Amino acid sequence: MHSIRKLANLGLRRASVLGCRQAKSFCTEDEAIRWPKKIFSGIQPTGSMHIGNYLGAVRKWVDLQEAGEDVTYCIVDMHSITLPQDPRILRLNILKMTATLLACGIDPVKSTLYVQSSVKQHTELGWILSCLTTMPRLSHLPQYKEKTKKLKDIPLGLFVYPVLQAADIMVHKATHVPVGEDQIQHIQLAQHLAKIFNYKFGTTFPQCHGMISDSCDARIKSLRNPSKKMSKSDEDQKSAIYLTDEPDQILEKIKKAVTDFTSAVTFEPETRQGVSNLIMIDSLMSGDTIEEICEDAALIDTGKYKLRVAETVIDHLNPIRSKIEEYMNNPEYLVHVLEEGRNKAAEVAERTMLEVKERVGLGAMLKVRQSDVLVDEL
Amino acid sequence: MHSIRKLANLGLRRASVLGCRQAKSFCTEDEAIRWPKKIFSGIQPTGSMHIGNYLGAVRKWVDLQEAGEDVTYCIVDMHSITLPQDPRILRLNILKMTATLLACGIDPVKSTLYVQSSVKQHTELGWILSCLTTMPRLSHLPQYKEKTKKLKDIPLGLFVYPVLQAADIMVHKATHVPVGEDQIQHIQLAQHLAKIFNYKFGTTFPQCHGMISDSCDARIKSLRNPSKKMSKSDEDQKSAIYLTDEPDQILEKIKKAVTDFTSAVTFEPETRQGVSNLIMIDSLMSGDTIEEICEDAALIDTGKYKLRVAETVIDHLNPIRSKIEEYMNNPEYLVHVLEEGRNKAAEVAERTMLEVKERVGLGAMLKVRQSDVLVDEL
Repeated sequence: MHSIRKLANLGLRRASVLGCRQAKSFCTEDEAIRWPKKIFSGIQPTGSMHIGNYLGAVRKWVDLQEAGEDVTYCIVDMHSITLPQDPRILRLNILKMTATLLACGIDPVKSTLYVQSSVKQHTELGWILSCLTTMPRLSHLPQYKEKTKKLKDIPLGLFVYPVLQAADIMVHKATHVPVGEDQIQHIQLAQHLAKIFNYKFGTTFPQCHGMISDSCDARIKSLRNPSKKMSKSDEDQKSAIYLTDEPDQILEKIKKAVTDFTSAVTFEPETRQGVSNLIMIDSLMSGDTIEEICEDAALIDTGKYKLRVAETVIDHLNPIRSKIEEYMNNPEYLVHVLEEGRNKAAEVAERTMLEVKERVGLGAMLKVRQSDVLVDEL
Repeated sequence: MHSIRKLANLGLRRASVLGCRQAKSFCTEDEAIRWPKKIFSGIQPTGSMHIGNYLGAVRKWVDLQEAGEDVTYCIVDMHSITLPQDPRILRLNILKMTATLLACGIDPVKSTLYVQSSVKQHTELGWILSCLTTMPRLSHLPQYKEKTKKLKDIPLGLFVYPVLQAADIMVHKATHVPVGEDQIQHIQLAQHLAKIFNYKFGTTFPQCHGMISDSCDARIKSLRNPSKKMSKSDEDQKSAIYLTDEPDQILEKIKKAVTDFTSAVTFEPETRQGVSNLIMIDSLMSGDTIEEICEDAALIDTGKYKLRVAETVIDHLNPIRSKIEEYMNNPEYLVHVLEEGRNKAAEVAERTMLEVKERVGLGAMLKVRQSDVLVDEL
């Protein structure tokens, strides 16, 4: 029974994509005509990716790509440097993230995949947008408050980065942005900046819409403290499973996953967070429903169930891990993929920037209209 | 006697350039070998230029160019937009500033002359530098305090622009920056950022040196209130003479220039600011020394002297005004000049950015060294 789960239910995954809800729906029919649907999302090059990122974000990116959407995915290295980075590790992590995304199913032919710093238009638009927002507007963003709580001398980049994030979205005229709940206020900043720009200089940018997942897969929890989100920054290395973990590491981590003293396998996310988290991971990786899983596990205890979950996770991640290794052994190919992506992204971004500069009055252009000459004081 | 003044003393102008002092001298012999002398300066596209800008800055730029220095001059339109601009006027002002600089003697073959927004590397480096400085470091800059005194909601751009200014200088690896006294703390920020960058990522940038003029020509005063600097933002339109003013406007403004009730023409800048300001303008435009001027004017009163000053100014500005008009009638040529300048500037800037990104670890590069792979956790 368990082994047939591997005929993973692609249909279920599709449904979860369609289950994405928009943070706010600004989109009128007129807008949809003027602005073709375009999806943009960014991910930091943080080295290894854990299954929380994978199930919560990247697998959805692949689904959107396979659904035929116009998708652009960006490895946002310019955001990484808002906190100190070791240059050697950062460079390697960019390649690792590329390898990981490809291994997870991002297809560089169907998606535009590139590195943020290779497309200068991001910071260029970022600067222009920073002239359209105010200090108080940024200092009220909760992520800023959160990130700087423990810092004495706040780096400027950490304060300004939501503006660069808005530029990331706007330079592509993206209409939809898959994000986590914690990013909603940054989407709102992008909406705000698009509105200000359009109001001041004429309609140039669509309103972007945050796509927040309705399903639970955004909420994969720490294995060691299931009241918290799974996170790379957790000090307990056993709290997260990475896509590059070897089978014995995965088995060990799932065995040590914190559950409660009840031995039955039941899905009660409010009261039994530990075992419910394992069931969720199992369901998302096997494609089985939660009901099916609980039924299957009716006769075993959580200890035995953990072995079953480990098997599912190992089977699911094995091909991904091998592919990551394969890609990492071929960095020339990764660089080639990123260069192709850069060319596609830069073309779109430059089109936007030519329009932006024309509207803002930047640069030297021959299009000095008669009406302009009239205001001349020469 | 008066007419021979027009054999303007070029030697005197040279001397005033050599009389520039460095704000601080960091430059050791080793540094001079590693970093060839390179001069960079920027000017905002503010439409018409007054004689304070001309005598205080632009004429020195020309002198440095004629002295055979490696000079790069930038029309900083990305700085203009830190305060609201009318796009049509901004675009026209960029062309006007180009025409004005050429009319003043900037030679696009000898100097690199371009528009900031046409070289994306400025904002690109600006972003990277903004990750290397802190909020408190910027909020202590006096120009920020000064500029935001009257503002309720401070635009972010106004806070961040000294970092972009540092990027302007650093992207060219400039060693010398002609600036006014009020910009010294921004030069210090650039020095600070170069030091931090070099310390963190290895020596990449020279220390830049502010070139502050020792001569008085940086201190051309308002004609209507000679205790203040001549300024475009003065409400009294008669306080400043513009390079594009017609002869009758110039005569009118100088006639109405505020002087005191003493009729003798004497140079006493502390106690007789009005007439001393006129003598200074006269000297800088005619090339005569202050002593020569006072001697010549020993038998006339300030009223008559004003007519003499007006003649000098009109004679000096006439050819400049005609050239500005000529250039403005040929916008294709101006755009061509700026494009050529852009190509030269972008080549230098891109060389810097390739080095910067390599050092910071940004982007995808094949140069993954063995030592990098060792730190890999894969």
